[in-house]
Amino acid sequence: MNLAQALFSPRAVALIGASGDPAKNTARPQRYLKKHGYAGKVFPVNPVRKEVLGEKAWPRVSELPEKVDHAYILIEDVEQALEDCGKAGVAVASIFSGGFADAGEEGMRRQARLVERARALGVRLLGPNSMGVIDIPGKLTLSVNAVLEMPALPAGGTSIVSQSGTMLGTLLSRGAARGLGFAKLISVGNEADVGVGELVELLAADSATHVILLFLETVRAPARLAAAARAAHAAGKAVVAYKLGRSALGEAAARSHTGALAGSDAALDAYFADCGIVRVDMLETLLEISPLLAGRSPLDLKRPGKVFVVTTTGGGAATVVDRLGMRGVELAAPIMDLTMAGTNATYAAALEKALQSDCDAVLAAVGSSAQFHPEVAVEPIISARAQKPVVTFFTPQAERSLALAAAAGIAAFRTPEACADALAAFFSWHAPNDRPAGALEIGSLQGFELFSHLGVPVAPWAIAEAPDYRHSIPYPVAVKRLGEHKTDSGGVLLGIKDHQDFQKKAASLDARQVLVQTMESGLAEAIVGYRDDPVVGPIVVVGAGGVLAEVYRDAVVRMAPVSEGEAEDMIARVKGFAAIRGYRNLPRGDVAALAKAVAAVSRLALAKGRPVLEAEINPLLVKASGVVALDALVAHKAAP
Amino acid sequence: MNLAQALFSPRAVALIGASGDPAKNTARPQRYLKKHGYAGKVFPVNPVRKEVLGEKAWPRVSELPEKVDHAYILIEDVEQALEDCGKAGVAVASIFSGGFADAGEEGMRRQARLVERARALGVRLLGPNSMGVIDIPGKLTLSVNAVLEMPALPAGGTSIVSQSGTMLGTLLSRGAARGLGFAKLISVGNEADVGVGELVELLAADSATHVILLFLETVRAPARLAAAARAAHAAGKAVVAYKLGRSALGEAAARSHTGALAGSDAALDAYFADCGIVRVDMLETLLEISPLLAGRSPLDLKRPGKVFVVTTTGGGAATVVDRLGMRGVELAAPIMDLTMAGTNATYAAALEKALQSDCDAVLAAVGSSAQFHPEVAVEPIISARAQKPVVTFFTPQAERSLALAAAAGIAAFRTPEACADALAAFFSWHAPNDRPAGALEIGSLQGFELFSHLGVPVAPWAIAEAPDYRHSIPYPVAVKRLGEHKTDSGGVLLGIKDHQDFQKKAASLDARQVLVQTMESGLAEAIVGYRDDPVVGPIVVVGAGGVLAEVYRDAVVRMAPVSEGEAEDMIARVKGFAAIRGYRNLPRGDVAALAKAVAAVSRLALAKGRPVLEAEINPLLVKASGVVALDALVAHKAAP
Repeated sequence: MNLAQALFSPRAVALIGASGDPAKNTARPQRYLKKHGYAGKVFPVNPVRKEVLGEKAWPRVSELPEKVDHAYILIEDVEQALEDCGKAGVAVASIFSGGFADAGEEGMRRQARLVERARALGVRLLGPNSMGVIDIPGKLTLSVNAVLEMPALPAGGTSIVSQSGTMLGTLLSRGAARGLGFAKLISVGNEADVGVGELVELLAADSATHVILLFLETVRAPARLAAAARAAHAAGKAVVAYKLGRSALGEAAARSHTGALAGSDAALDAYFADCGIVRVDMLETLLEISPLLAGRSPLDLKRPGKVFVVTTTGGGAATVVDRLGMRGVELAAPIMDLTMAGTNATYAAALEKALQSDCDAVLAAVGSSAQFHPEVAVEPIISARAQKPVVTFFTPQAERSLALAAAAGIAAFRTPEACADALAAFFSWHAPNDRPAGALEIGSLQGFELFSHLGVPVAPWAIAEAPDYRHSIPYPVAVKRLGEHKTDSGGVLLGIKDHQDFQKKAASLDARQVLVQTMESGLAEAIVGYRDDPVVGPIVVVGAGGVLAEVYRDAVVRMAPVSEGEAEDMIARVKGFAAIRGYRNLPRGDVAALAKAVAAVSRLALAKGRPVLEAEINPLLVKASGVVALDALVAHKAAP
Repeated sequence: MNLAQALFSPRAVALIGASGDPAKNTARPQRYLKKHGYAGKVFPVNPVRKEVLGEKAWPRVSELPEKVDHAYILIEDVEQALEDCGKAGVAVASIFSGGFADAGEEGMRRQARLVERARALGVRLLGPNSMGVIDIPGKLTLSVNAVLEMPALPAGGTSIVSQSGTMLGTLLSRGAARGLGFAKLISVGNEADVGVGELVELLAADSATHVILLFLETVRAPARLAAAARAAHAAGKAVVAYKLGRSALGEAAARSHTGALAGSDAALDAYFADCGIVRVDMLETLLEISPLLAGRSPLDLKRPGKVFVVTTTGGGAATVVDRLGMRGVELAAPIMDLTMAGTNATYAAALEKALQSDCDAVLAAVGSSAQFHPEVAVEPIISARAQKPVVTFFTPQAERSLALAAAAGIAAFRTPEACADALAAFFSWHAPNDRPAGALEIGSLQGFELFSHLGVPVAPWAIAEAPDYRHSIPYPVAVKRLGEHKTDSGGVLLGIKDHQDFQKKAASLDARQVLVQTMESGLAEAIVGYRDDPVVGPIVVVGAGGVLAEVYRDAVVRMAPVSEGEAEDMIARVKGFAAIRGYRNLPRGDVAALAKAVAAVSRLALAKGRPVLEAEINPLLVKASGVVALDALVAHKAAP
C-alpha cells in the first residue's frame, strides 16, 4: 500500500489513545469519522477501557482483529505506540502529540530518535504535532480539528497543506462560507518525516486535486518542495503559498551586507518565484484566488499585467484599481463605468468588449445589483467566461451573488485588497525556471582570485611587504591593511601618487603586508553577493552600492545561478541603478557588464560540493565600459 | 430652520421629478421614505401626472399646500426646480441630477451659475450628483441608493460622509452585516455648496453621532474640513478617512523636486495627521475600526504602539502580528498562546494579565471556539473590557461571535490585515495640531536672499560680471551660470582655486553675469522644500539629497509651519539621514541645525498673503556643525 493510499484512503484506522471523555480533543477523531461517514473500520485503542464512545476498545494496535493502514497517535507515549504500529504493520502513523521538535533541544533529539526508529520499523510518520488528515470526497476525517463540528464538509478540487494545524480549520471554514470545495487537507506538524514537499508531490498526482494551497511558517525541505512544485506545474496544477514572516525581514542577524540586504523573506520570494509557486500577500487571497488559478497556466508575462475594468460603481471599482496601481498592474483602458440603469444586455456587451481588448484579465466590479438582484448581476459574468479570466468584486454585502459566482467557478473577492492581491499574484505567476546543471571547479580559491576565476574583472592588485613595500602596480594606487573592508574606513588610504608617498603611507598602516590596488573610477557602485541561504539554498543578490542603498534595502534577490538575461532583469529592478540607466541625463553605466558579473558570481551555486557560504563584491565599480571589483569577501563553509 | 434640521429632520419633503415608473431610480425615494417610516409629509412633484405611486402629484413646489424644508431634485432642469424652491422658501435642495462639475468645463460653469443663484435665493444645495441623505434613527431615507431595499436599517452611532454615492450603499450594507449601526449617511456629490467639511461640523455637533467615517476621492475644502475635524476632536468624536489615490503618488506632473518628492498622497497623509483624522488603508477597516475609536481619545504616542496578544491559535495570531510588524507596531510581550484545552477562566485570566501589562491595546485572536462556542469565546472578551481597548480577530468563519462582539461594542475584524491596519491607525492617531499664528514679512525676496531672511545660513555668494568677473568671495569658489541648477551639470564649475582660473572658467560659461560661491564641504546633502499644495495648502518637506534619495522618494512631509521639535521628528523619519545619525560609525551631522532650517523654511506658510508657491533648498549641506544652503529656488504665485 503506497503512502497516498494509507494517508488518505486507509481501509481501516486505529485511534491510539482515543478518549472516552467527549470533552477531550482526543475523543474527537472517533466522533468525526463517524459523523462524516468514513466507510472503513475505526478501532479505538485504549488499554484502560473496554469501550470508548460506545465502540469496543482494544488494548494495542498489534492485537486488532484486522490490519489498519493508518494510525493516529493521540497519547504521550508516542514511542511505545510506534513500536506497536511497527509490529502491526501499520503503513503510516499520524501523531497529534507534541513534545518533539516543538519543545526545544531535548525534544529535537527525541524526534530524531523517533524518526530513526520509524524508518527501521517501516512506518511513515505525519507530525508529530499534527492535527491530522482530511479527505472530503473520500470521507476521511482523521483529525482533532474542531472545524469538523461543521454539519457537512464541502467537497471540491482545492487541497491544502498547512504548517499550522488550527489554520487548517480556519481555511476550511472560511472556504466553505465562500462556496469553495476541498479535496484533501493535511496538517503537517513538525514534518519529522512526511513534509510539505512530499505531500505536494502526492497532490500533484491526485486526480481529485486541481489547486494546491500552502499555509507556511517556514520551508523545511526546499529542494523537495521545489521539485514537487515543478511536478504540480507539469500536471497543470497551481501551487499557492501564504507565508508568515514578511515582517521578519532583516530581523535575523546578518553577517555580511548581502545577508542584510537579502533577508530571509526576500530569499523566500525568490525561491517561490523560481519554482513557480504563486505567493499571495493576504490570508483570504489564499482561498479566493483558487477559482482564478484552477485549470490555468502561468501567463509568463515579461511586462506588467493589464486589467480591463467594467463596473456599475465607479467608486467601488476604484478601490480595487487604486490597489492594483500600488502593485504595478496597469489598466488596459480607462474604467468602463456603466450607468446605473445599465441593462443586462449592456453589461454583457461590455464584458464582451472587455474580453476582446488587449488585456490579461477582466475585472467586473458590481454595486447594489449584486445585493438585490444576484441573478441579474452574476449571469452576464458567468456567460462571459472565456479564455481570459473574469474576476469579480461585489462592493456591497452580497452573499447570494458570491455563492452564485462560486458555484460557477468564478473568482469573487470579498475585499478590494484581496481582489488586487490575487490579480497581481496571477500576473506575476511564472512557470518554474529550469535549474541549470553543470559543475564548476573552484578549489580553495579566495577573495579576488576566486572572482577572477569566475570571470569578474578585478582591479590589478598585489601584496607589498615591509620594509620597502616594493610592488609593480602602476600609480596612482590605493593601499589597505590586508582583510580590511573599505566601508570601515581607517585602514584604507586612497589616491597615492608615487612610490615615496606609498612607502610612507604603507608604513603608517603598521602592517608587515599591505594590499596595493590600482585606483579606479566609475559611474556607480554596485554590491553583488552570493549566499547559500540556510532555508532556500543558493541565492544571488545585486544592489546599488554605498551606505544609502544599504539603508534603503535596494537589492534584488534570485535563486542562483542566473543567466545574463535574468541578471539584466534583476538590475532593471534595482531603483538606485536609475543613476546609470540615464536618469536626469546622468552618464549611462555598462549594465551588460554588470549583468555578466552577476551571472558569473551566481555560478558559485554550481561549484562542486557548494563549498562557499557567502561571497560578496562590495563595491563593484560600474564604468561607462566594463565593471571592476574593488573589494571582495568570501566565506567558505566550515568543514563538516 | 437651520441646515442640520432641514437636511436630516425636515418636517416635509418634496421629490421634484418623482417618477411613477417603479423601475426608475427616480421613483425610489418616495418608496423608500414610506418603507422606512418617514414621519413627515412627502410631496411628489411632477407636472405631467396627477398622481405618482398612489400619491397625489403636484405641478411645482411653490404650489404645495404646506412648506417643505428639504426638496430632492431628480430632474434634468435643475435650474427651474431651484427657482421654484427659492420661491417656496425651501431651506435645502439635494440634487441627484448630474451634468455639472462632473461633466467638464461647461458643466463647471453651469454649476457656478447654479450656486450663485442658490445663494441669491437663500437655498442651500447638497450635490449636484448626490445620492441623498439618510438618517436612520430619524427615519429619513431621502435617497436613490438601492441599499434602501434592505428590509430594515440598523441604527447606531456611526455616521458616514461619502464622495461616492454608490459606496454609501456598500458601506451601509457591509456595516449592517457586521452589526454596525448608523446615524446619518450623506452622499455629497459635487459639493457645490454643502461639502464634507460642513457636514463634519454638523456631525460633530450631532448628539446621535459618535464616530464619523469619510469615504474620500479628494479634499475640496481642506481648511473647512480641518476646522471641522478639530471641532469633532473637541466633541470627543473620532474622524476616520479612507481615501482613494494612494497609487496616484507621483502621477501628477511635478514641476520641482519638492513636488515630486511630496506627491499629493503624502501631502494628504500630512494633512490628515495634522487635523487629527485617522487614515485607514483598507476599505473594511473604515467600518471595522469604528467600535475601537468610539468614545476614545487619541493616545498621542511618541513611540511605536505596543500590543499584547492572547490567542488560542498561534498561527492565527501570527497572521495579524506579521502585519503589525510591517506597520511598525511592537509586541508588549511574546504572543500568549493558550492551550487548546484552555478553560474560560484561563482565558479571562490571560486577558486580565494582558490588560495589566505595559501595552496600549490587547488583541484576542480566537480559533475554532469562535465558530462553535461563540458565547464561550466572546464572553471573557466582553467582561475584560477596561480602559485599554481589547480587539478581536476570530480566525474561522464565525458569524455569531462577530455579532456578539458587535453587540457588545467590541471591535472584531474579519481579516488579519484589517485588524492590523486598524491597530496601526489607532496607534498613529494624534490630537489635531495647533496651527501657529503669526505673520511674516517677506516682501519680494527671492532665492538666497529669501532663505537668509528666513534664517537659513547660505554659502557666501556674489554676482561677477564680464569682462573681468571681479568679486570678493575668498577662494576656492564655485561658479555657475545664473539660474543654473546644480544637478543639471554643465553650467556649474567647482573647486576654482584662484582668480586667474576663475576668469577663464567664468568666461567659458559664456554669460555676462555669473554666480560665485564659496566652496563648502559637509557630511551629507539634504533637500528642504516648501509648497503651497493646491489640495491641502502649505506643506514642508525634508529629504535626503542627491539623485538616489530622489529615486527612493525618501522624504517626509508635514503641514507647514512646523516647530523645530516637529522638524527633528521629520528628520528622524528620513531613512537616508542614517548616514548622519551615526550609522556604521559615520561622522554625525548637525541635525539640530537642519531642524532649525526646516522650521525656518516652513514659516513661509505664515508669510502675509502666502505669496510663495514653491521654495526649495537643494542641496542644503549638513556639516558636523551647522548647515549651509548651496542652491535655492523660489517660485512666487502668479499675480491674481
